[in-house]
Amino acid sequence: MECPIARALEEIGDGWSLLILRDALRGVRQFADFQEGLGIAPNTLTRRLDKLCRHGLLRRRRYQEHPPRDEYRLTDKGLELLPILLALGEWGNRWVLHGKASIVPVDLRTGEPIELAIVDRRTGASIQPGAVAVVAGKGASKQLRARLVTPLPLGAESSPLDRGLASARRRTTPG
Amino acid sequence: MECPIARALEEIGDGWSLLILRDALRGVRQFADFQEGLGIAPNTLTRRLDKLCRHGLLRRRRYQEHPPRDEYRLTDKGLELLPILLALGEWGNRWVLHGKASIVPVDLRTGEPIELAIVDRRTGASIQPGAVAVVAGKGASKQLRARLVTPLPLGAESSPLDRGLASARRRTTPG
Repeated sequence: MECPIARALEEIGDGWSLLILRDALRGVRQFADFQEGLGIAPNTLTRRLDKLCRHGLLRRRRYQEHPPRDEYRLTDKGLELLPILLALGEWGNRWVLHGKASIVPVDLRTGEPIELAIVDRRTGASIQPGAVAVVAGKGASKQLRARLVTPLPLGAESSPLDRGLASARRRTTPG
Repeated sequence: MECPIARALEEIGDGWSLLILRDALRGVRQFADFQEGLGIAPNTLTRRLDKLCRHGLLRRRRYQEHPPRDEYRLTDKGLELLPILLALGEWGNRWVLHGKASIVPVDLRTGEPIELAIVDRRTGASIQPGAVAVVAGKGASKQLRARLVTPLPLGAESSPLDRGLASARRRTTPG
Protein backbone atom coordinates (compact mmCIF):
# COMPACT_ATOMS: atom_id res chain seq x y z
CA MET A 1 0.00 0.00 0.00
CA GLU A 2 1.46 3.29 -1.08
CA CYS A 3 -1.38 5.67 -0.19
CA PRO A 4 -0.25 7.80 2.75
CA ILE A 5 -3.80 7.91 4.12
CA ALA A 6 -4.01 4.11 4.14
CA ARG A 7 -0.56 3.92 5.71
CA ALA A 8 -1.57 6.37 8.41
CA LEU A 9 -4.74 4.40 9.11
CA GLU A 10 -2.75 1.17 9.46
CA GLU A 11 -1.13 2.74 12.52
CA ILE A 12 -4.02 4.65 14.06
CA GLY A 13 -7.26 3.73 12.28
CA ASP A 14 -8.52 0.87 14.42
CA GLY A 15 -11.26 2.57 16.39
CA TRP A 16 -9.58 2.72 19.79
CA SER A 17 -6.20 4.18 18.87
CA LEU A 18 -7.47 7.65 17.98
CA LEU A 19 -9.42 7.79 21.25
CA ILE A 20 -6.33 6.76 23.21
CA LEU A 21 -4.36 9.50 21.42
CA ARG A 22 -7.15 12.00 22.15
CA ASP A 23 -6.90 11.14 25.84
CA ALA A 24 -3.09 11.35 25.75
CA LEU A 25 -3.46 14.85 24.29
CA ARG A 26 -5.65 15.90 27.21
CA GLY A 27 -2.94 14.70 29.62
CA VAL A 28 -3.79 11.08 30.36
CA ARG A 29 -0.62 9.01 30.88
CA GLN A 30 -1.35 6.06 33.10
CA PHE A 31 -2.94 2.74 32.22
CA ALA A 32 -5.65 3.01 34.87
CA ASP A 33 -6.61 6.52 33.70
CA PHE A 34 -6.88 5.44 30.04
CA GLN A 35 -8.95 2.45 31.12
CA GLU A 36 -11.31 4.48 33.27
CA GLY A 37 -11.72 7.25 30.71
CA LEU A 38 -12.39 4.93 27.79
CA GLY A 39 -14.22 2.01 29.42
CA ILE A 40 -11.95 -0.29 27.40
CA ALA A 41 -11.06 -3.91 28.31
CA PRO A 42 -7.57 -4.12 29.87
CA ASN A 43 -6.21 -6.60 27.30
CA THR A 44 -7.49 -4.47 24.42
CA LEU A 45 -5.92 -1.38 25.98
CA THR A 46 -2.60 -3.23 26.44
CA ARG A 47 -2.58 -4.26 22.77
CA ARG A 48 -3.41 -0.76 21.57
CA LEU A 49 -0.80 0.92 23.78
CA ASP A 50 1.81 -1.61 22.59
CA LYS A 51 0.91 -0.89 18.97
CA LEU A 52 1.09 2.88 19.47
CA CYS A 53 4.49 2.51 21.18
CA ARG A 54 5.74 0.18 18.42
CA HIS A 55 4.79 2.75 15.78
CA GLY A 56 6.39 5.53 17.77
CA LEU A 57 3.27 7.56 18.62
CA LEU A 58 3.64 6.99 22.35
CA ARG A 59 6.76 6.41 24.43
CA ARG A 60 6.63 4.11 27.45
CA ARG A 61 8.45 5.28 30.58
CA ARG A 62 8.72 3.49 33.92
CA TYR A 63 7.88 5.88 36.70
CA GLN A 64 7.75 3.43 39.60
CA GLU A 65 9.63 0.18 40.27
CA HIS A 66 7.72 -1.43 43.18
CA PRO A 67 5.25 -2.39 41.89
CA PRO A 68 6.36 -1.67 38.29
CA ARG A 69 4.28 1.09 36.71
CA ASP A 70 4.69 2.64 33.25
CA GLU A 71 3.36 5.85 31.85
CA TYR A 72 2.74 6.70 28.22
CA ARG A 73 3.82 10.01 26.73
CA LEU A 74 3.15 11.38 23.27
CA THR A 75 6.08 11.64 20.90
CA ASP A 76 6.30 14.42 18.30
CA LYS A 77 4.73 11.98 15.84
CA GLY A 78 1.75 11.58 18.16
CA LEU A 79 1.55 15.26 19.07
CA GLU A 80 1.28 16.21 15.40
CA LEU A 81 -2.11 14.51 15.26
CA LEU A 82 -3.56 17.21 17.53
CA PRO A 83 -4.73 19.57 14.75
CA ILE A 84 -6.19 16.64 12.80
CA LEU A 85 -8.14 15.42 15.83
CA LEU A 86 -9.38 18.96 16.47
CA ALA A 87 -10.52 19.17 12.84
CA LEU A 88 -12.33 15.86 13.27
CA GLY A 89 -13.98 17.24 16.41
CA GLU A 90 -15.09 20.33 14.54
CA TRP A 91 -16.61 18.12 11.85
CA GLY A 92 -18.34 16.13 14.63
CA ASN A 93 -19.72 19.30 16.21
CA ARG A 94 -21.10 20.42 12.88
CA TRP A 95 -22.36 17.21 11.32
CA VAL A 96 -23.00 14.75 14.14
CA LEU A 97 -24.04 17.13 16.94
CA HIS A 98 -25.77 19.36 14.35
CA GLY A 99 -24.00 22.53 15.39
CA LYS A 100 -24.74 22.06 19.12
CA ALA A 101 -21.01 21.95 19.88
CA SER A 102 -20.23 20.11 23.11
CA ILE A 103 -16.50 20.92 23.27
CA VAL A 104 -14.73 23.71 21.40
CA PRO A 105 -11.07 24.69 21.07
CA VAL A 106 -9.75 28.00 22.41
CA ASP A 107 -6.43 29.81 22.26
CA LEU A 108 -4.82 28.90 25.61
CA ARG A 109 -3.14 32.30 25.93
CA THR A 110 -6.10 34.54 25.13
CA GLY A 111 -9.06 32.23 25.84
CA GLU A 112 -10.54 33.28 22.49
CA PRO A 113 -12.34 30.58 20.45
CA ILE A 114 -10.27 29.11 17.64
CA GLU A 115 -11.74 29.19 14.15
CA LEU A 116 -10.22 26.05 12.76
CA ALA A 117 -9.45 25.98 9.02
CA ILE A 118 -7.49 23.65 6.76
CA VAL A 119 -5.83 25.87 4.17
CA ASP A 120 -3.18 26.04 1.50
CA ARG A 121 -0.57 28.09 3.33
CA ARG A 122 0.74 29.63 0.09
CA THR A 123 -2.64 31.17 -0.78
CA GLY A 124 -4.50 31.11 2.55
CA ALA A 125 -7.47 29.53 0.75
CA SER A 126 -9.50 26.73 2.34
CA ILE A 127 -9.18 23.29 0.78
CA GLN A 128 -12.33 22.83 -1.32
CA PRO A 129 -13.72 19.63 -2.89
CA GLY A 130 -13.34 19.84 -6.65
CA ALA A 131 -10.46 22.35 -6.45
CA VAL A 132 -7.78 19.87 -5.33
CA ALA A 133 -6.09 17.00 -7.11
CA VAL A 134 -3.36 14.54 -6.22
CA VAL A 135 -0.22 13.68 -8.14
CA ALA A 136 2.64 11.25 -7.54
CA GLY A 137 5.19 12.41 -4.98
CA LYS A 138 8.96 11.94 -4.90
CA GLY A 139 8.64 8.58 -3.18
CA ALA A 140 6.06 7.12 -5.60
CA SER A 141 6.75 3.81 -7.32
CA LYS A 142 6.83 3.51 -11.11
CA GLN A 143 3.43 1.78 -11.02
CA LEU A 144 1.86 4.60 -9.00
CA ARG A 145 3.43 7.21 -11.27
CA ALA A 146 1.90 5.43 -14.30
CA ARG A 147 -1.55 5.48 -12.63
CA LEU A 148 -1.25 9.20 -11.84
CA VAL A 149 0.06 10.58 -15.15
CA THR A 150 -2.61 13.29 -15.00
CA PRO A 151 -3.63 14.89 -11.68
CA LEU A 152 -6.55 13.05 -10.08
CA PRO A 153 -9.24 15.51 -8.91
CA LEU A 154 -10.72 14.90 -5.44
CA GLY A 155 -14.34 15.50 -4.53
CA ALA A 156 -15.18 16.59 -8.07
CA GLU A 157 -18.83 16.71 -9.20
CA SER A 158 -18.14 14.50 -12.22
CA SER A 159 -15.69 11.73 -11.50
CA PRO A 160 -12.68 10.81 -13.63
CA LEU A 161 -14.22 7.34 -13.89
CA ASP A 162 -17.32 8.88 -15.52
CA ARG A 163 -15.13 10.76 -17.94
CA GLY A 164 -13.17 7.58 -18.68
CA LEU A 165 -16.44 5.81 -19.39
CA ALA A 166 -17.72 8.67 -21.55
CA SER A 167 -14.56 8.72 -23.66
CA ALA A 168 -14.67 4.91 -23.95
CA ARG A 169 -18.27 5.24 -25.20
CA ARG A 170 -17.23 7.89 -27.72
CA ARG A 171 -14.50 5.62 -29.03
CA THR A 172 -16.99 2.79 -29.62
CA THR A 173 -19.67 5.01 -31.20
CA PRO A 174 -19.73 4.58 -35.01
CA GLY A 175 -18.99 7.62 -37.12
CA MET B 1 -20.69 10.24 24.73
CA GLU B 2 -20.47 13.97 24.29
CA CYS B 3 -16.97 14.34 22.82
CA PRO B 4 -17.35 15.41 19.19
CA ILE B 5 -14.22 13.42 18.22
CA ALA B 6 -15.68 10.24 19.71
CA ARG B 7 -19.03 10.96 18.03
CA ALA B 8 -17.31 11.47 14.67
CA LEU B 9 -15.37 8.22 15.10
CA GLU B 10 -18.58 6.32 15.86
CA GLU B 11 -19.65 7.09 12.30
CA ILE B 12 -16.37 6.80 10.40
CA GLY B 13 -13.70 5.35 12.70
CA ASP B 14 -13.99 1.65 11.97
CA GLY B 15 -10.98 1.09 9.75
CA TRP B 16 -12.76 0.60 6.42
CA SER B 17 -15.07 3.60 6.39
CA LEU B 18 -12.35 6.23 5.96
CA LEU B 19 -10.84 4.22 3.09
CA ILE B 20 -14.24 3.94 1.42
CA LEU B 21 -14.66 7.71 1.79
CA ARG B 22 -11.15 8.27 0.42
CA ASP B 23 -12.09 6.23 -2.66
CA ALA B 24 -15.40 8.08 -3.01
CA LEU B 25 -13.42 11.34 -3.00
CA ARG B 26 -11.29 10.11 -5.90
CA GLY B 27 -14.45 9.36 -7.88
CA VAL B 28 -15.33 5.75 -7.07
CA ARG B 29 -19.10 5.23 -7.04
CA GLN B 30 -19.93 1.66 -7.85
CA PHE B 31 -19.88 -1.37 -5.58
CA ALA B 32 -17.55 -3.37 -7.86
CA ASP B 33 -15.08 -0.47 -8.07
CA PHE B 34 -14.96 -0.03 -4.28
CA GLN B 35 -14.49 -3.77 -3.91
CA GLU B 36 -11.69 -3.99 -6.45
CA GLY B 37 -9.89 -0.92 -5.16
CA LEU B 38 -10.02 -1.95 -1.50
CA GLY B 39 -9.80 -5.74 -1.69
CA ILE B 40 -12.65 -5.86 0.83
CA ALA B 41 -15.07 -8.75 1.35
CA PRO B 42 -18.45 -8.04 -0.32
CA ASN B 43 -20.50 -8.47 2.87
CA THR B 44 -18.16 -6.16 4.80
CA LEU B 45 -18.38 -3.58 2.01
CA THR B 46 -22.20 -3.83 2.00
CA ARG B 47 -22.32 -3.23 5.76
CA ARG B 48 -19.96 -0.26 5.59
CA LEU B 49 -21.77 1.35 2.65
CA ASP B 50 -25.09 0.88 4.49
CA LYS B 51 -23.65 2.51 7.61
CA LEU B 52 -22.22 5.45 5.67
CA CYS B 53 -25.58 5.95 3.92
CA ARG B 54 -27.48 5.67 7.23
CA HIS B 55 -25.25 8.38 8.75
CA GLY B 56 -25.67 10.57 5.68
CA LEU B 57 -22.08 10.53 4.42
CA LEU B 58 -23.00 8.76 1.17
CA ARG B 59 -26.24 8.84 -0.81
CA ARG B 60 -27.42 5.73 -2.66
CA ARG B 61 -28.81 6.26 -6.14
CA ARG B 62 -30.16 3.61 -8.52
CA TYR B 63 -28.63 4.11 -11.93
CA GLN B 64 -29.85 0.92 -13.63
CA GLU B 65 -33.00 -1.17 -13.16
CA HIS B 66 -32.27 -4.45 -15.00
CA PRO B 67 -30.35 -5.80 -13.21
CA PRO B 68 -30.70 -3.32 -10.30
CA ARG B 69 -27.49 -1.35 -9.73
CA ASP B 70 -26.84 1.43 -7.19
CA GLU B 71 -24.13 4.01 -7.06
CA TYR B 72 -22.87 5.86 -3.98
CA ARG B 73 -22.27 9.59 -4.03
CA LEU B 74 -20.76 11.77 -1.34
CA THR B 75 -23.07 14.17 0.48
CA ASP B 76 -21.82 17.54 1.75
CA LYS B 77 -21.22 15.84 5.10
CA GLY B 78 -18.94 13.32 3.40
CA LEU B 79 -17.26 15.88 1.14
CA GLU B 80 -16.25 17.96 4.17
CA LEU B 81 -13.94 15.18 5.29
CA LEU B 82 -11.69 15.86 2.28
CA PRO B 83 -9.37 18.35 4.00
CA ILE B 84 -9.14 16.11 7.08
CA LEU B 85 -8.19 13.09 4.96
CA LEU B 86 -5.62 15.18 3.10
CA ALA B 87 -4.16 16.29 6.44
CA LEU B 88 -4.01 12.64 7.52
CA GLY B 89 -2.21 11.81 4.26
CA GLU B 90 0.29 14.59 4.86
CA TRP B 91 0.95 13.18 8.34
CA GLY B 92 1.38 9.73 6.72
CA ASN B 93 3.85 11.11 4.17
CA ARG B 94 5.87 12.71 6.91
CA TRP B 95 5.77 10.18 9.71
CA VAL B 96 5.01 6.80 8.15
CA LEU B 97 6.72 7.19 4.75
CA HIS B 98 9.48 9.27 6.41
CA GLY B 99 9.15 12.21 4.05
CA LYS B 100 9.26 10.06 0.89
CA ALA B 101 5.80 11.28 -0.10
CA SER B 102 4.00 8.86 -2.42
CA ILE B 103 0.99 11.05 -3.23
CA VAL B 104 0.79 14.82 -2.78
CA PRO B 105 -2.04 17.32 -3.21
CA VAL B 106 -1.93 20.06 -5.84
CA ASP B 107 -4.13 23.01 -6.71
CA LEU B 108 -6.28 21.67 -9.57
CA ARG B 109 -6.34 25.03 -11.36
CA THR B 110 -2.64 25.88 -11.23
CA GLY B 111 -1.05 22.46 -10.71
CA GLU B 112 1.04 23.98 -7.91
CA PRO B 113 1.68 21.82 -4.82
CA ILE B 114 -0.55 22.60 -1.86
CA GLU B 115 1.13 23.39 1.44
CA LEU B 116 -1.46 22.03 3.82
CA ALA B 117 -1.83 23.77 7.19
CA ILE B 118 -4.40 23.61 9.98
CA VAL B 119 -4.69 27.13 11.32
CA ASP B 120 -6.74 29.46 13.45
CA ARG B 121 -8.37 31.53 10.73
CA ARG B 122 -8.57 34.61 12.98
CA THR B 123 -4.81 34.77 13.49
CA GLY B 124 -3.47 32.61 10.64
CA ALA B 125 -1.31 30.74 13.18
CA SER B 126 -0.85 26.97 13.02
CA ILE B 127 -2.47 24.91 15.75
CA GLN B 128 0.36 24.00 18.16
CA PRO B 129 0.36 21.43 20.96
CA GLY B 130 0.47 23.23 24.29
CA ALA B 131 -1.06 26.42 22.88
CA VAL B 132 -4.63 25.13 22.57
CA ALA B 133 -7.22 24.22 25.15
CA VAL B 134 -10.80 23.04 25.06
CA VAL B 135 -13.83 24.45 26.85
CA ALA B 136 -17.49 23.46 26.99
CA GLY B 137 -19.52 24.51 23.95
CA LYS B 138 -23.11 25.73 23.69
CA GLY B 139 -24.43 22.17 23.47
CA ALA B 140 -22.53 20.83 26.50
CA SER B 141 -24.42 19.09 29.30
CA LYS B 142 -24.29 20.36 32.87
CA GLN B 143 -21.97 17.47 33.80
CA LEU B 144 -19.53 18.30 31.00
CA ARG B 145 -19.62 21.98 31.92
CA ALA B 146 -18.72 21.06 35.50
CA ARG B 147 -15.77 18.97 34.29
CA LEU B 148 -14.51 21.81 32.09
CA VAL B 149 -14.76 24.78 34.46
CA THR B 150 -11.21 25.77 33.51
CA PRO B 151 -9.91 25.36 29.95
CA LEU B 152 -8.23 21.97 29.47
CA PRO B 153 -4.86 22.35 27.69
CA LEU B 154 -4.13 19.87 24.89
CA GLY B 155 -0.69 18.44 24.14
CA ALA B 156 0.85 20.34 27.05
CA GLU B 157 4.28 19.29 28.37
CA SER B 158 3.00 18.97 31.92
CA SER B 159 -0.47 17.48 32.09
CA PRO B 160 -3.38 18.86 34.12
CA LEU B 161 -3.47 15.47 35.85
CA ASP B 162 0.15 16.02 37.03
CA ARG B 163 -0.80 19.42 38.32
CA GLY B 164 -3.86 17.97 40.05
CA LEU B 165 -1.61 15.39 41.70
CA ALA B 166 0.96 18.02 42.66
CA SER B 167 -1.64 20.23 44.30
CA ALA B 168 -3.14 17.20 46.08
CA ARG B 169 0.35 16.42 47.40
CA ARG B 170 0.81 20.01 48.56
CA ARG B 171 -2.50 19.85 50.40
CA THR B 172 -1.41 16.72 52.29
CA THR B 173 2.11 18.01 53.06
CA PRO B 174 2.35 19.19 56.69
CA GLY B 175 3.25 22.80 57.23
